[in-house]
Amino acid sequence: MSMNTFGHLFRVTTWGESHGPALGATVDGCPPGVEITEEMLQVWLDQRKPGQNKFTTQRREPDAVKILSGVFEGKTTGTSVQLMIENTDQRSKDYSEISQKFRPGHADITYWQKYGIRDYRGGGRSSARETAARVAAGGLARAALDHLAPGIQIKGYMVQMGPRRMDRTRFDWDVIDTNPFWCPDAVTAEDWAEYLDGLRKSGDSVGAVIEVTARGVPAGLGAPVYGKLDTDLAAAMMSINAVKAVEIGDGMAAAELTGTDNADEIRMGPDGPVYGSNHAGGILGGISTGQEIVTRFAVKPTSSILNTRKTITIDGQDTEIVTKGRHDPCVGIRAVPVGEAMMACVILDHLLLHRGQIGDAGGKIGPV
Amino acid sequence: MSMNTFGHLFRVTTWGESHGPALGATVDGCPPGVEITEEMLQVWLDQRKPGQNKFTTQRREPDAVKILSGVFEGKTTGTSVQLMIENTDQRSKDYSEISQKFRPGHADITYWQKYGIRDYRGGGRSSARETAARVAAGGLARAALDHLAPGIQIKGYMVQMGPRRMDRTRFDWDVIDTNPFWCPDAVTAEDWAEYLDGLRKSGDSVGAVIEVTARGVPAGLGAPVYGKLDTDLAAAMMSINAVKAVEIGDGMAAAELTGTDNADEIRMGPDGPVYGSNHAGGILGGISTGQEIVTRFAVKPTSSILNTRKTITIDGQDTEIVTKGRHDPCVGIRAVPVGEAMMACVILDHLLLHRGQIGDAGGKIGPV
Amino acid sequence: MSMNTFGHLFRVTTWGESHGPALGATVDGCPPGVEITEEMLQVWLDQRKPGQNKFTTQRREPDAVKILSGVFEGKTTGTSVQLMIENTDQRSKDYSEISQKFRPGHADITYWQKYGIRDYRGGGRSSARETAARVAAGGLARAALDHLAPGIQIKGYMVQMGPRRMDRTRFDWDVIDTNPFWCPDAVTAEDWAEYLDGLRKSGDSVGAVIEVTARGVPAGLGAPVYGKLDTDLAAAMMSINAVKAVEIGDGMAAAELTGTDNADEIRMGPDGPVYGSNHAGGILGGISTGQEIVTRFAVKPTSSILNTRKTITIDGQDTEIVTKGRHDPCVGIRAVPVGEAMMACVILDHLLLHRGQIGDAGGKIGPV
Amino acid sequence: MSMNTFGHLFRVTTWGESHGPALGATVDGCPPGVEITEEMLQVWLDQRKPGQNKFTTQRREPDAVKILSGVFEGKTTGTSVQLMIENTDQRSKDYSEISQKFRPGHADITYWQKYGIRDYRGGGRSSARETAARVAAGGLARAALDHLAPGIQIKGYMVQMGPRRMDRTRFDWDVIDTNPFWCPDAVTAEDWAEYLDGLRKSGDSVGAVIEVTARGVPAGLGAPVYGKLDTDLAAAMMSINAVKAVEIGDGMAAAELTGTDNADEIRMGPDGPVYGSNHAGGILGGISTGQEIVTRFAVKPTSSILNTRKTITIDGQDTEIVTKGRHDPCVGIRAVPVGEAMMACVILDHLLLHRGQIGDAGGKIGPV
Repeated sequence: MSMNTFGHLFRVTTWGESHGPALGATVDGCPPGVEITEEMLQVWLDQRKPGQNKFTTQRREPDAVKILSGVFEGKTTGTSVQLMIENTDQRSKDYSEISQKFRPGHADITYWQKYGIRDYRGGGRSSARETAARVAAGGLARAALDHLAPGIQIKGYMVQMGPRRMDRTRFDWDVIDTNPFWCPDAVTAEDWAEYLDGLRKSGDSVGAVIEVTARGVPAGLGAPVYGKLDTDLAAAMMSINAVKAVEIGDGMAAAELTGTDNADEIRMGPDGPVYGSNHAGGILGGISTGQEIVTRFAVKPTSSILNTRKTITIDGQDTEIVTKGRHDPCVGIRAVPVGEAMMACVILDHLLLHRGQIGDAGGKIGPV
Repeated sequence: MSMNTFGHLFRVTTWGESHGPALGATVDGCPPGVEITEEMLQVWLDQRKPGQNKFTTQRREPDAVKILSGVFEGKTTGTSVQLMIENTDQRSKDYSEISQKFRPGHADITYWQKYGIRDYRGGGRSSARETAARVAAGGLARAALDHLAPGIQIKGYMVQMGPRRMDRTRFDWDVIDTNPFWCPDAVTAEDWAEYLDGLRKSGDSVGAVIEVTARGVPAGLGAPVYGKLDTDLAAAMMSINAVKAVEIGDGMAAAELTGTDNADEIRMGPDGPVYGSNHAGGILGGISTGQEIVTRFAVKPTSSILNTRKTITIDGQDTEIVTKGRHDPCVGIRAVPVGEAMMACVILDHLLLHRGQIGDAGGKIGPV
Repeated sequence: MSMNTFGHLFRVTTWGESHGPALGATVDGCPPGVEITEEMLQVWLDQRKPGQNKFTTQRREPDAVKILSGVFEGKTTGTSVQLMIENTDQRSKDYSEISQKFRPGHADITYWQKYGIRDYRGGGRSSARETAARVAAGGLARAALDHLAPGIQIKGYMVQMGPRRMDRTRFDWDVIDTNPFWCPDAVTAEDWAEYLDGLRKSGDSVGAVIEVTARGVPAGLGAPVYGKLDTDLAAAMMSINAVKAVEIGDGMAAAELTGTDNADEIRMGPDGPVYGSNHAGGILGGISTGQEIVTRFAVKPTSSILNTRKTITIDGQDTEIVTKGRHDPCVGIRAVPVGEAMMACVILDHLLLHRGQIGDAGGKIGPV
Repeated sequence: MSMNTFGHLFRVTTWGESHGPALGATVDGCPPGVEITEEMLQVWLDQRKPGQNKFTTQRREPDAVKILSGVFEGKTTGTSVQLMIENTDQRSKDYSEISQKFRPGHADITYWQKYGIRDYRGGGRSSARETAARVAAGGLARAALDHLAPGIQIKGYMVQMGPRRMDRTRFDWDVIDTNPFWCPDAVTAEDWAEYLDGLRKSGDSVGAVIEVTARGVPAGLGAPVYGKLDTDLAAAMMSINAVKAVEIGDGMAAAELTGTDNADEIRMGPDGPVYGSNHAGGILGGISTGQEIVTRFAVKPTSSILNTRKTITIDGQDTEIVTKGRHDPCVGIRAVPVGEAMMACVILDHLLLHRGQIGDAGGKIGPV
C-alpha cells in the first residue's frame, strides 16, 4: 500500500526527486538508544556519492545528510528519524527535448502513462539519487544492528561487469575497497577499468552483477511463507533502480542441480550446526540458518547513452533521441553500497520481527 | 508484518499445514460482483494437484476447494472470501526418525531454531501443499481480472529442467498443455520425460526454471520505487517454496548488455506505442509498459531424496538420513500453476491500487 | 488496507456471514509455544453465544470452535491459526421483504450503495455473529498473554443500560459473573432485568455502555503518536457492531476537568510509581503507565425491532417495515465478551510490538 | 506497525520533536494532478499556529511549511510529498528540573519507562507541535478532495469548554470563524472568553469538546468490519494529543435510546434517500450514508499548569513540580483545525480505497 515504503517494523519511506530541493528517508521503528551521528551516516553516503572517479557521473553532489528528528544527544529516541539530503548541483539546462520525448529504457513513458504528469527534468523518483536516501537509512540500520547484535558484517561487491565475470578463485575481501568497482579481485578490476573506459568513451554503458553477503546473522530470522527472509531480500533488491534479477545462494544455477548435490549436509560443530556447503545461501524455508547470507542482483546498463535511439514524442510522433548529460557508464558500481544498505535494513527488520513474535522461544540443538 | 499474507488491496492470507485437518486462503479486498463458483476454482486446483502422472508425488489428494464466505448467489459480495481445502490423504506413519533428525535442504532445522516447536509430520507451512491455497486464491484473482479488465492472459510453462533448456525456436503456446511438464516444445518434453524418469528411479531429484507471462496488461500499473510491479512480482515468486531466483525480462542476462542493446526502442503504432524489443520484460521504472510481462524463477531440486545424506539430531549428534515417502522428483512441475496464480494476484492487486490512487488520471500519447 | 483485519504483529482477519456455512478468524503472528485447546477457546465463546437467557436472541447456535491450523500437540507453532465456527441454525425463511426493503438503523442500504450486491438473508458481515470470531481470537490472545506476561486480568461489564446507570459505590468484581448483564452491582442488575423485560415485550430495544478494564499491564506499551495504545483501543472498540463512542479513562468527562484536577499525581511506592488517581485510564501519551487500563464504549440499541418504521425499497418507493425474527433486546449484553476479546488482542499486539522495537531498553525508576 | 503513520492508501507519516530543527509529514499515495502550493497549505497552518491571541501559547512560531518533493509546477505528481516545518522559537532554557522530574499528566514518565531515553526539552513527539504536520497533510488532503470530489465541506468547532456547553439552538456556521474558540454561538464564545481568562490567570487549564462534521460525502465509503469509516475516524481523533474520547453521531447518548427512537427513518427524495434524523452520524455498518458525518472528541485539560503537583524524580524520590512556560490554557482550541485535518485525511483515504476495491460497482436506488 505504501508505494514509497519498505520494511515491517523498521520502516523506511523515501521521498524526493533528483531535481527538487531535497530528498530523504523517514525511518520509523528504529530501536531507542542506538548511537548515531551525521558523520557516521556520511561514511556510507560518501561511498555512493557521484563524482568519485571517472567511472561515475560527474554530477557533483556533496550528499550531506542531516538528521532532523528522532535523535537526542547522539542516540536514537525510538521515534521517527528524518534523514534529509539537499540537492545542490542542479544545473540549469534546456529541458525542451526530454519534456516532449520519451527516453528508451527510462521510465519517462510509463510515468506519463500512469500519472498524466511527470517532472521531466530528470528521472524523478527513478533517479539513482533516490538511492542516497536508502544508503542513509541503511547506515542507521547498521548502527542499530551493531547495537543489538554486534558482529554482523555486511559487504557488497561486483562480480560481473557486462559479460566479464570476476575470477572467484582470486576472491579477496581485502581487495574490495581498493578499486573503484568494489571488485574482490585486483586483476579483474584492472580488466574492467580498461573495458569500461572504452565503453564510456564510445558513449555507451553496460550492466553488472552485484553480490551482497551478510556474515554473523543468527539462525532463526525470517518466516516460512510470505514473511520469508529471502522474499524480503528479493523485494528489497528488485526495488533498486535498474535491477532485473535477484538470486539467493545458488540462484538460477540451483535449477541445474540434483537434490543430492543441492542438499547442504550438516554435522555438529563445537558451537552448533556446521554445514558442508551453502547452496541455500544461508536461508532454508525462508529462515536464516546461521550461515553466510548470499544474494546477487543484476543491474541493467544505464539507459542514458550517447547513441541515437528511436522513440516517440508525447504527441505520438516517431522521432530519435540522444541522452546527453553526466551519466554513469556502469550504474551498477554505485549500486554496491545501495545493496548493502538494503541488506542491513532487511536483516534489522527481521531481527526486530523475531524479537517481537518469538522472543527467546527458539529451540536449542545439543544435549539437554 | 503479516507473515502469512501477500498483497496490498487484494490481500491473501494462507493458513494450514500438510498434516492438519485443512488448509486454505482468506482473501480480503476482492471486488464485488465477480462471478465465481467452486467449479471455476477447481479447474486451477486440478492442474496443481498431486498424483496426476508418474512425475508428481503419488500422495492422492482431491484438493477440493470450498467457498465458505464472501460469495452470494455465485458472485463475490466484496467481503472476505474463505477458500478451504481439506486434507484427506494423511497416511499413518512412523515419524520417530524425522522427529529427531533434521532433513538437509528442508526447513526442519530452521523451524526448530526459530520456533522451538515444529510439526514434524511433514513440511508444515513449507510443504508444497500450502501452494494449493495460493492456486485457489489465484483462481479468484483471475475471475476478478476477467471481470474488471477482460483480455489479460496469464500463462506459465517450464523452460529448463536441470541443465536441459528448452529450444526457444520451437516455442508453441498450444503445446504447453499437452505434456506433463507444461513445456512449450514437444521435443524437449520428450527429452525431459526420459531424463526425469531416470532421476526418479535413482531416487534423486532435479531443479527447474519456470517462466510466467502476462499478456494484455494495460500500461501504467506499478509505482516507481518500492511499490514497483517487479518488486511485488519478485517477492511473490520468491515466496514460493524452493524458489531461489527471480528474473524480470532479460533478468541476469541484462548485466551482459550494453545500454545501446538494452534500450527497447519505441515507435508509434495505430493503437499506441510499439516496442522493437522487450528486454525490460514489460516493466520500466516499476510500471507496466503494456508489453508482455515476463518473469522467470528457478526452483531448486526437491530436498526429499532416497540418497543418504549426513545430518544431525536434535540432540546434536552426527547421523545420516534418507527421506522416504511419496515425493516429486521435480517439484518445479507443480510450481507452474502456482507461478501463474501469483502473477494473477499481483496484477489484480496493482490494478486495484492503480484505480485507487490514480483512477483515470493517466496520460494519453498522441495528437491532442 | 485490510478491511477485515486488525492488529499489527498479532493480526486477526475475520471472515464469514451470518447465513453462510461458517465463519472464523485467521490469526497471524501468534507466538509459538502457547498452550491452547478448542476447549479453552470454547469457554469464552460460550459466554457470548446466543440463547443463554431470555435477554439474548433465541437463535440457537452451539458456536463450537475448531482449530484447523497452527497448533500441534496442544501448543501453537508460530504459524497462522485458523479458528472456524460453523453456522448451524439457519432457519429457512421468507426473505422476499427484506431483500427489497432497507431496514432503518441497519447497514442494508449502505451495503447496497457500496457494493451493488448484498446477502439479504441477514446482516452479512455486520451481523453480531461476526463477533464470535473475535471472541475466539481473543481467547487465543488471552492464552498468549498468560504465556508471556502472566497476571494480566481483563474484565468487561455493563455500567449502563439505556438511561439507567449502575451505582458505582456498589461495584463488586465478584458480582459480574452472577447476572445475565455482567453488571458489577446486583441491585442494578435486578432493576435492569425488569426494565429490559418490559422493553422486550413491547418489541423495542435499548442501548448500553460497556466498560472493559485490564489490570497488570506493564508500563511502556504503546507509542506516542498514531501507534498509541489508546488509538488502537479506540479503533478496536469502535469496530464492534453498533458501537458509537469510545472513552479512555475519564473519557468525555475529561473535558470538564481543570488541569489541576486531571493530573494524576505520582509518588514512589515500594514497587515503583504509584498514582493518586487514574483520570488517564492508565495511558499517558499513548503509552501504558502500569495502572489499570480503562475503556468504555456505547452500544446503540438493536435496530431490529417490532415497531413499524418508515423506509424505502430498492426501487426507491416509500414504504414501512417491521423487523421480525429472533433478536437481542439489548445487544450490548453480548458485546461484553467481545470488548474483552478486543482488549486482549490489543494488549498482546502491543506487548509483541514493544518486544520487537524496544526489547528491554526501557528505563528504570529508582536509585541507580 | 508504523507507529508514526496513519492511513491506508493516503498515508501520512509524521516526524519531528518540539525542540529539534524541524518537523513534518511524509505523505504517500496522494493522487497526481492535485493543484497545491505552499500558500494553500499555509492557510490551514495559520489557523493552528500559536500566539494568535491570549488564549493560546505565546511561543511564536511562523509554522511556515515547505514542500520538498512530490509537486511539480504546482501539481502533485503522485509520488511522496514531503511537507517540512522548521522550528524557530526554541528559547534557551534551564532544563535541569524537568530532565529529572516527571510532569504529572505528561508522557514524561511513560517515555522513560518505554524507551529508556527521552528528549526532556519538551513534549517530544507528544508536543502539540506535532499536530502542525497533521494540519499540513490535512491541507493536502483537502486539495485532493476538491480535485476528486468537489463539494465536500469539512468544518470543526468547539461545543464545550470545561463544564460549559454551547447553546445548540443558536448554532450558526457563520459565527465559527469569528471568535478565538471556533464556537458556533457568539454568546457562548463571550462566556468562554471570560471563563478561560480567569483560569489562565490562575495558572490552571481546562478541557474541551470539539465537533467535526463533513458535508457532501458520498454514500458508500467505508467497510463493514475493521475497515469501518468510523473505526478510522475514532483512531484518527484518538491519536490527537490529549484526546480521551471519540463519539460518532449520538455517541455516548446512543446508549440511552430505544431502537424505535434510534432508527433513522428513510424516505425517497428527488435525489435519493432522505433520512428523518441522523442519530447514526452519517455512518451505518461502517459505511457512509450520504448524510452529514458527525464526530466529536474530548480533549483533556493542558497538563502544563502553574499549580504545584506531587511527582517523583527519575531516581525514585518523591518531590513536587510546577510546569512553567508558555502554554495553552485550553489546548482544545488549537485541536479544532487538527480535527478537521484528520477528518479530511480519513475521508480522502476511504475515497481512494473505495475507488480501488469497488470502482463504480455500487448500487443505485430507484426505478430501473
